[in-house]
Amino acid sequence: MTNTDPFLSISGRQLQESAIRKMGTVVASGRDVISFAPGYPAPETFPWDDFAAIAAELFNSRDGNVLQYGPTRGYRPLLETIAGIMQRRGVSTPIEQLLVTTGSQQGLDLVARVLIDPGDVILVELPTYVGAITAFRNVQASMVGVPQDADGIDVDALDATYERLRRDGRRVKFLYVVPNFQNPTGLLIGLSKRRQLLDWAERRDVLIVEDDPYRDLYFEDSAGESDVRAIKADDTQGRVIYLSSFSKTLAPGYRVAWLAAPPALAARLEMAKQAEDLLTGSLDQRMIYEACRRGVLDRQLPVLRQHYAHKRDVMEAALRRELGSDVSWPKPKGGFFLWVTLPAGIDAGQMIARAIEEGVVYVTGDAFYVDGTGQNTLRLSFSAPTPDRIDAGVARLAATLRGERAARATTGAAAGRGAR
Amino acid sequence: MTNTDPFLSISGRQLQESAIRKMGTVVASGRDVISFAPGYPAPETFPWDDFAAIAAELFNSRDGNVLQYGPTRGYRPLLETIAGIMQRRGVSTPIEQLLVTTGSQQGLDLVARVLIDPGDVILVELPTYVGAITAFRNVQASMVGVPQDADGIDVDALDATYERLRRDGRRVKFLYVVPNFQNPTGLLIGLSKRRQLLDWAERRDVLIVEDDPYRDLYFEDSAGESDVRAIKADDTQGRVIYLSSFSKTLAPGYRVAWLAAPPALAARLEMAKQAEDLLTGSLDQRMIYEACRRGVLDRQLPVLRQHYAHKRDVMEAALRRELGSDVSWPKPKGGFFLWVTLPAGIDAGQMIARAIEEGVVYVTGDAFYVDGTGQNTLRLSFSAPTPDRIDAGVARLAATLRGERAARATTGAAAGRGAR
Repeated sequence: MTNTDPFLSISGRQLQESAIRKMGTVVASGRDVISFAPGYPAPETFPWDDFAAIAAELFNSRDGNVLQYGPTRGYRPLLETIAGIMQRRGVSTPIEQLLVTTGSQQGLDLVARVLIDPGDVILVELPTYVGAITAFRNVQASMVGVPQDADGIDVDALDATYERLRRDGRRVKFLYVVPNFQNPTGLLIGLSKRRQLLDWAERRDVLIVEDDPYRDLYFEDSAGESDVRAIKADDTQGRVIYLSSFSKTLAPGYRVAWLAAPPALAARLEMAKQAEDLLTGSLDQRMIYEACRRGVLDRQLPVLRQHYAHKRDVMEAALRRELGSDVSWPKPKGGFFLWVTLPAGIDAGQMIARAIEEGVVYVTGDAFYVDGTGQNTLRLSFSAPTPDRIDAGVARLAATLRGERAARATTGAAAGRGAR
Repeated sequence: MTNTDPFLSISGRQLQESAIRKMGTVVASGRDVISFAPGYPAPETFPWDDFAAIAAELFNSRDGNVLQYGPTRGYRPLLETIAGIMQRRGVSTPIEQLLVTTGSQQGLDLVARVLIDPGDVILVELPTYVGAITAFRNVQASMVGVPQDADGIDVDALDATYERLRRDGRRVKFLYVVPNFQNPTGLLIGLSKRRQLLDWAERRDVLIVEDDPYRDLYFEDSAGESDVRAIKADDTQGRVIYLSSFSKTLAPGYRVAWLAAPPALAARLEMAKQAEDLLTGSLDQRMIYEACRRGVLDRQLPVLRQHYAHKRDVMEAALRRELGSDVSWPKPKGGFFLWVTLPAGIDAGQMIARAIEEGVVYVTGDAFYVDGTGQNTLRLSFSAPTPDRIDAGVARLAATLRGERAARATTGAAAGRGAR
């Protein structure tokens, strides 16, 4: 057989399997495994009846455009709907600045392709979204991490990092941030920090890529509309590329998301999308458009906020009950994720085999770090499992941790020093 | 405002708008324009009732996976269905060799990214599919064209081209071919030539990318199953990457296509897809799977063959009636396209403004040539317009050509020499 390895491109050789998707394989193996790994929305929240009614009308219409090729930019009425959504988020975006994407993952990929040459620097949060890391790595970007405080990215460290890179002659193209309920930490960037980031980008002549899939999913006991203001809302200079999605609020299987970018860039991103998949699914765009037009999205949002806030409560209570002070985490004020720091010396990657044995999976924290750290952290998604499964899964996680510590305690001084 | 141009990558700066999509903008302008430009399937052939019934069942099932994230490889039952389709095309493909893609456009893009470094050579037919040109240009491939005979690519010229490139120290990664009813020429590669191409690829250690979206749409007066045998069917060495699609046979708006590749390459392509869009639409994959399972696809194929053969007949008759011997074309034995050579000296690009004025559009032939030639050719799609519109459109095309020749005849000797 032909050995195809010598045919691979540099980028082709560097591809790595996603840490999250790898966990998916474990879950699909058929064993009783409770998965806190992927950030899946809760399927019990999907508005089935609305979708069924919309689909019936679309097919009964026999409007050929429902199933035909369509414009790369997106279905025009959907673009107008998105412009309305953006307006309500404080961002005035004419259609020329919008592009429908096949999930936000495609948005990240397009941005990377249109902006990044091999070796260009992208600044990212430590930790940051693993799907962005993958898209950026594929264009051979050099990713440099910036630490976060309780209210998100450390702006002083950001500028110091920039200065250091500049002294080394490196070109920083953009800063990638997830300001609202960050994946994986759940952190929220403070409002004054958002302004500081814009000012910094202007001063240092850097673009900002603002990835905002979770902003509507704030938990009303701790955050509200005023806390999730888009950085792009104050972007008078056209420095921010903004990405958002219907995947977390309507359903991910439609693969309908969007980006907003300065017009010249939006035109480039559209051309890149032409070459990448021509257009986002026509039926999918119609389904989403109709769900918006009929008020389904607006009705869903308060329901989803309550749903996920409750699951967060269940997970926090279970963690406190089962693990007490052994682990710590910042309280998620929205979104899908809870970010756990393990006891010193415990390695989430080394522990994963034991976790699978106990019947629970998570994503190891190191997958979200571009600097090779994060070994004693892990990401738990509370979004998809039912409350009962969350309780059971956290109990299994506690058993995993007990087992891990016991094993380490019996393996001598080196391990013993690490455990407390 | 920020000038974003200095932020563009090399690839971002080189992006060009698709010639086909540009014509789409003309058509969308609202004037009465008959479009022979895009290769759209005929919407009147879409099996609406079947799709409506499938959608109703899927939504009524309330099966969360219908709208959830799913495996990057594709929905497992759909992969198995595709393996069956491949088997009937003479290709034995275990699931490990298959990947569902978001349209074949994504397949081309993934192949390009995983295999091509800037400057690597891709050999293509002259002319070839413009969407492939776009995807290959985006990874900064160097595309070199090989002429075609009546039965497709000229194998001697292919090898001579390869030899010349090798002498120049260039690396040829793959040959891209559309063997069945090529886009844009409608040509069919002869069976013996297919074997020769495989032998050549083996001898020269080059891969073949076989793009096969039209193979089921042969016209029974001039071609059949035995004429469309996949090159991949005889690929014992794992040298062929095969792409096909449901876009032309079920509907393009679902964006469901696939590729088959040697297992090691398929794994790389899957990782590249993870970074590009995570997965192809879940609902879309279910719709296509159910349409296959329920026999909708099998029932459609003979209907589509008749439908498009009839439209080809209508277009050929109209061209003979309206344009006589002024233009020539190879008779399409299948597919969506008719490839017209204009009278010597007539430039399809220069003529397009007049055509739009007359109310008809086509794609200028030069868009399909990687060597800067093809100015006196154009591509007509007969797939989407109704027979009446085909008649009217060809009459407008004839008026366009008459006007163009008259204008040229009155603009002096230089132009006069070109017209006959």
